[in-house]
Amino acid sequence: MRDTVYSCTPIGRIDTPFKQKFGVPRQSGLAQHAIGVIELYREFGADSVRGLEEYDYLWLQFVFHQVLDEGYKQMVRPPRLGGKIKKGVFATRSPHRPNHMGLSLVRLQEIQIDECVRIVCSGVDLVDGTPILDIKPYLAHLESHPYAKGGFGATKRETLVVQWLPESRQGLDATQILLIEEVLAQDPRPAQQHDIDKIFVMNLAEKTIHFRVDKAMVTVLDVADSP
Amino acid sequence: MRDTVYSCTPIGRIDTPFKQKFGVPRQSGLAQHAIGVIELYREFGADSVRGLEEYDYLWLQFVFHQVLDEGYKQMVRPPRLGGKIKKGVFATRSPHRPNHMGLSLVRLQEIQIDECVRIVCSGVDLVDGTPILDIKPYLAHLESHPYAKGGFGATKRETLVVQWLPESRQGLDATQILLIEEVLAQDPRPAQQHDIDKIFVMNLAEKTIHFRVDKAMVTVLDVADSP
Repeated sequence: MRDTVYSCTPIGRIDTPFKQKFGVPRQSGLAQHAIGVIELYREFGADSVRGLEEYDYLWLQFVFHQVLDEGYKQMVRPPRLGGKIKKGVFATRSPHRPNHMGLSLVRLQEIQIDECVRIVCSGVDLVDGTPILDIKPYLAHLESHPYAKGGFGATKRETLVVQWLPESRQGLDATQILLIEEVLAQDPRPAQQHDIDKIFVMNLAEKTIHFRVDKAMVTVLDVADSP
Repeated sequence: MRDTVYSCTPIGRIDTPFKQKFGVPRQSGLAQHAIGVIELYREFGADSVRGLEEYDYLWLQFVFHQVLDEGYKQMVRPPRLGGKIKKGVFATRSPHRPNHMGLSLVRLQEIQIDECVRIVCSGVDLVDGTPILDIKPYLAHLESHPYAKGGFGATKRETLVVQWLPESRQGLDATQILLIEEVLAQDPRPAQQHDIDKIFVMNLAEKTIHFRVDKAMVTVLDVADSP
């Protein structure tokens, strides 16, 4: 009987370059230049993170807050499989799951202690503003199984090649270019929208990016400041 | 502001050999012969786990339900450090944490589909009856960082040598003996109780075990059926 209810409250929120779901990497660690900053609520002071700097990686437990209204399904169609094959929700990392809880492994970059605690991390795959429920250290000696069978998720997918129209990257710095390339190389298109004439619009890190995809090649058409 | 509250309900519960907190391994994967059986609530049928059998390892997200009343502390004293050094709660895997959420990596052994779904896994570190909030596949290509810095948790601790008084293991099968040895070798004693004359009593897998510890040697004095 699913009768017990537990309540939880976020310990903080994360700022990320992903202002919308479209473009969020499909797992953590795929876009190294995607930097997130977790700001802990004031209840959690410097003491609460003492010793965390000894670790390279952190687990984030969080809420897929943008899809809470959408419920869950027993089976989902992972985009990784072209959106055509169904898998059990517990055999995927889909956000459309019971309790809508996510788990991401991110790289710790820096801990800033000021009027509040800020934890800077890279390789994030979270929408801006995601509520964080918990932070835990990654235990390499117990949680590292490089040869574990990994199902469909384990085969490396081909990434796309990114090319830029001559003027499109003017005014961008190297970090912005790398982040945009990492995100586009993962092919953020929905599985059903592979029309080569379609122009996609993505908001990423205060920029609005127009791009088109033809087979294994993404072309960035234009990058402008987001309104 | 910690004002948003999310509610979650278990997807199932896990049966484990650990009928009490004393003796539960301090991380998952430490006692390979600790077998757990997750029974999903009927809402989650065979479809919900389709494809899960392709994975070797699973993440379990769960509630530390036995310590919900005990709240949390900003700093804790990890038993791994002898109970003398304080670390920030987010730099540990202590159950005394905000939201009391746990994360364990277990090895998938078998999925049984009958009138309900049962997932058999090994290397568990959960108290019998723990509410499970989510099950996710382990993504070896993204979650395996064998050379990551691991803080104090990474150095392998010496395990204890286990010896048995002549009659103490009569009537036990090999699996019971291995489980008891794995659990005792991890030194389950509280950090402050290292008196060599003290006799400890542990309930494990329907057995009541009496043992004593002298330096690096555990002696099993007696094993009887639990009442």
